[in-house]
Amino acid sequence: MGSIWGERLRLSLFGESHGPGVGMVLDGLPAGIPVDLERVRAFLDRRAPGRDPWSTPRKETDQPEILSGLYQGRTTGTPLAALIRNADTRSADYARLAATPRPGHADRAGAVRYGGFADPRGGGHFSGRLTAPLTLAGALCREGLRPLGIRVVGHAAAIAGIADDPLFPDAGDMGRPAVDPEAWPGGRFPAILEAAGAAMEAAIGAARAAGDSVGGRVEAAVLGLPEGIGDPMFGGVESRAASLLYGIPGVKAVGFGLAEGFADVRGSFANDAFHDTPQGLRPRTNHNGG
Amino acid sequence: MGSIWGERLRLSLFGESHGPGVGMVLDGLPAGIPVDLERVRAFLDRRAPGRDPWSTPRKETDQPEILSGLYQGRTTGTPLAALIRNADTRSADYARLAATPRPGHADRAGAVRYGGFADPRGGGHFSGRLTAPLTLAGALCREGLRPLGIRVVGHAAAIAGIADDPLFPDAGDMGRPAVDPEAWPGGRFPAILEAAGAAMEAAIGAARAAGDSVGGRVEAAVLGLPEGIGDPMFGGVESRAASLLYGIPGVKAVGFGLAEGFADVRGSFANDAFHDTPQGLRPRTNHNGG
Amino acid sequence: MGSIWGERLRLSLFGESHGPGVGMVLDGLPAGIPVDLERVRAFLDRRAPGRDPWSTPRKETDQPEILSGLYQGRTTGTPLAALIRNADTRSADYARLAATPRPGHADRAGAVRYGGFADPRGGGHFSGRLTAPLTLAGALCREGLRPLGIRVVGHAAAIAGIADDPLFPDAGDMGRPAVDPEAWPGGRFPAILEAAGAAMEAAIGAARAAGDSVGGRVEAAVLGLPEGIGDPMFGGVESRAASLLYGIPGVKAVGFGLAEGFADVRGSFANDAFHDTPQGLRPRTNHNGG
Amino acid sequence: MGSIWGERLRLSLFGESHGPGVGMVLDGLPAGIPVDLERVRAFLDRRAPGRDPWSTPRKETDQPEILSGLYQGRTTGTPLAALIRNADTRSADYARLAATPRPGHADRAGAVRYGGFADPRGGGHFSGRLTAPLTLAGALCREGLRPLGIRVVGHAAAIAGIADDPLFPDAGDMGRPAVDPEAWPGGRFPAILEAAGAAMEAAIGAARAAGDSVGGRVEAAVLGLPEGIGDPMFGGVESRAASLLYGIPGVKAVGFGLAEGFADVRGSFANDAFHDTPQGLRPRTNHNGG
Repeated sequence: MGSIWGERLRLSLFGESHGPGVGMVLDGLPAGIPVDLERVRAFLDRRAPGRDPWSTPRKETDQPEILSGLYQGRTTGTPLAALIRNADTRSADYARLAATPRPGHADRAGAVRYGGFADPRGGGHFSGRLTAPLTLAGALCREGLRPLGIRVVGHAAAIAGIADDPLFPDAGDMGRPAVDPEAWPGGRFPAILEAAGAAMEAAIGAARAAGDSVGGRVEAAVLGLPEGIGDPMFGGVESRAASLLYGIPGVKAVGFGLAEGFADVRGSFANDAFHDTPQGLRPRTNHNGG
Repeated sequence: MGSIWGERLRLSLFGESHGPGVGMVLDGLPAGIPVDLERVRAFLDRRAPGRDPWSTPRKETDQPEILSGLYQGRTTGTPLAALIRNADTRSADYARLAATPRPGHADRAGAVRYGGFADPRGGGHFSGRLTAPLTLAGALCREGLRPLGIRVVGHAAAIAGIADDPLFPDAGDMGRPAVDPEAWPGGRFPAILEAAGAAMEAAIGAARAAGDSVGGRVEAAVLGLPEGIGDPMFGGVESRAASLLYGIPGVKAVGFGLAEGFADVRGSFANDAFHDTPQGLRPRTNHNGG
Repeated sequence: MGSIWGERLRLSLFGESHGPGVGMVLDGLPAGIPVDLERVRAFLDRRAPGRDPWSTPRKETDQPEILSGLYQGRTTGTPLAALIRNADTRSADYARLAATPRPGHADRAGAVRYGGFADPRGGGHFSGRLTAPLTLAGALCREGLRPLGIRVVGHAAAIAGIADDPLFPDAGDMGRPAVDPEAWPGGRFPAILEAAGAAMEAAIGAARAAGDSVGGRVEAAVLGLPEGIGDPMFGGVESRAASLLYGIPGVKAVGFGLAEGFADVRGSFANDAFHDTPQGLRPRTNHNGG
Repeated sequence: MGSIWGERLRLSLFGESHGPGVGMVLDGLPAGIPVDLERVRAFLDRRAPGRDPWSTPRKETDQPEILSGLYQGRTTGTPLAALIRNADTRSADYARLAATPRPGHADRAGAVRYGGFADPRGGGHFSGRLTAPLTLAGALCREGLRPLGIRVVGHAAAIAGIADDPLFPDAGDMGRPAVDPEAWPGGRFPAILEAAGAAMEAAIGAARAAGDSVGGRVEAAVLGLPEGIGDPMFGGVESRAASLLYGIPGVKAVGFGLAEGFADVRGSFANDAFHDTPQGLRPRTNHNGG
């Protein structure tokens, strides 16, 4: 399986790149969350390809239809299902896939795993298209997190070797606020430094002109979480976040805090020592991303 | 949660009685199962209300749209999702539900459980309407069981105190075949004895004329299962079947073999002794429904 | 699998009848529950065979060793594991099992399911011995339910055709309290009517003298539950309770409220109509066991 | 929860650093796997602290007692449980923890999460001591993988900035075999280059002499896996491996193939192109760790 994730909140994704559509069922959302569908759609639009010069050229309208779980503008507490119909599905492009699997895609693994019966058009269920219902699920969860004061922010930290400023200018300084990319205008490239964003955009364009693509690194932060979130062992925030993030095609490394930088520092630096504050015990630094 | 069931094969149900539709996602179906959609629809038609004089008067067309997981007539191995749109949704009928919960329904429990945010129209997610995608899931699973020679049969064993003949005339006789209700013509009342079926139909009609309804008992059997199915403790066939069957509204008792009859017999009768046969060790009787 | 049950509270059972011991891990117990180990042991003693003339002759001491999850007399919130060592394991009794599987046991199914590698001594993991850690898990859960005012009561409603009085003398009368079998002295046969209990005990003895055993029916009730417990579809109390109860060897039928009696009544009787009370909306009857 | 992991094979961990012991239950192991307990113990010994000059000074004997699931040297197919008793538990060392949570540990988060009821001694359930049953689970799984020709190898790729040679000298060359650290003698520092290992050992000693510790990077590979392992979306090998690996205290970054190096390369390099070989379609390079 694998297309169902979670325990208290369960996300079930379905659909193929070139079938009738893609969608999701979210089971376990609390009842009574007000959902602003305009805001949800705007969030989905930030993902939709074809809007910006730097993303893939496929055009998608991505208007989700809510099938259940919303009543009079609020979640009912029972499963919230939504469908996003596929529009621009030029299957002919993929006719030769059965013969020649694309490198870096699941074409070959899927063909072996499913004995040749997986839908090969556009990667089928393994398509990046599945990030549309995943983004929709995220947008719906944000509606529930918003009244709790919990925000998720992120930016393109590096693309093609071009680095943006970090979200927290001093990784160890708990006192300085993160940039809020949600305040950016819609068409802006998601980088803090406009010059870095422009250079990234140019690098993407240059690679595309050469029939190629570029790698990058995304930095994200969840702000406003209460202390004590998570469960022991495999139920920690890191285990759960990583298992979700690796569901996004193209993600090949996930780290927290200093991430791979921990390999090169001593414990005395890596550990975030506590000190007393008027708000209670607080760590002085945040090298662990906690 | 609760609307997701299973481990190797997971079923996720969604939808409300008076929302856009009801549906299901089946994750874990093996790849390559040929699916005859005509047969699936015919199976769904046997459930659909309004077809027969004895069932509830709501008219439904119940044409499922397969959204994913089928390609060139076979399962892909990735999630199979389907949507059944609601048509006959007279919400006005239910306008007074918030004030007066229907007895024997989930109106009250749902209102408490979800803090008043559950969709009250027609029971919302708790409606008998959810048996439509459940039946669809069953029809799809039957497509996969068919090539394995596994059949599921059943009939109305008793309604309003009127008893049908049992599926296996001698509950202890392993040698006599079950009646196959799948061979019955579509419009036939699901009883083995035509006279019993006619009496049941009349009893249903009489109760309805009196603004009432009747109780009953369904007997079903799975034929052709290999030995050794199931897991220990809570993973036995009985635990799993019961947890599914209690998902059907109106089911209030589930038993296997002699069921409640076990209370009145001695162990020497209840146990099914093994004897040697040309096919290997076999039980002589089947009081345990195994 | 099957030996792990649950979602928010997970129970993992292990052990074989004639191995080093049997045990359980409970993951998800809230932190801070005070646990009275004497009370837990007394509850286990009520299950232990060999104590009473009417139960199986195997002698067990059943002193559980708590391995984790308790600190200074309270649950820690992390997994609570316990081990009950096996003592009276006369393996020689079972030497001939491989050749002749016992009817009414899992010997045959287990041998097929596990390709001959299951521990055949005393039923191995399928032994009634596994009800010891299951009872221990129940005793620990009772410690958590006690401060919430939730009680579980039960009795032998019928054995060998001899009926006890019901827990609630009028099944439809919500106002009359259940008998509390927990107030009974330890050695008392678990029947409300002493005469019925004596007759049941005699019937068990007579069957045993004839090398046989008897069937019966247990009636139990959970008292003090708040309204709105459970989840939709397969997450209802009935689905969950049934999947647990069928994990007990020998359980062959599970029903709620009128149970199999629903088959013979009309909806107007089966449904529990609500009426206004000073405590709010309440059902006048309790035919549904809710 | 969080201390139970997996779907088809479920691992349940329990225990605290200073309680009676730590242990595990593995549910879902196939029946009939021959288990060499000497080899299992030798594998555990490689983890045990106090054996080598470079690891933590706590002495542990770590002799696991198998409680269930093994019969006549083979897995039974039912839950395999094991207990490792704690021996060297100097609780006094931790008496002051409640007042001063250790940075870089779960002391503070656990105290908040469990309302002060978690066992604070040695980190309780959050202790690195829990890697003993985790290693035992790994050793048992290795017994099952061995007959299938599947091996797991690894080494200290970098410690305190000192790099070892990579497992695969040319990350892109599929034709060159990995070093097999399992062939190393028991007391050897787990580095391919003996000189690098000696320098790492010296760096660990120097940090310890300064009351500090060092960071590092582990490289591991699973050899002999068949094609097509894994499930879509969140069920991929990467999601599952990461959710397990983050269960190990101290892991802060997990990557596959080029890992964080993907950020700096173009798609044409990152993708592993297929070519025809006598063994069928094979990738020419292995930048994706697949």
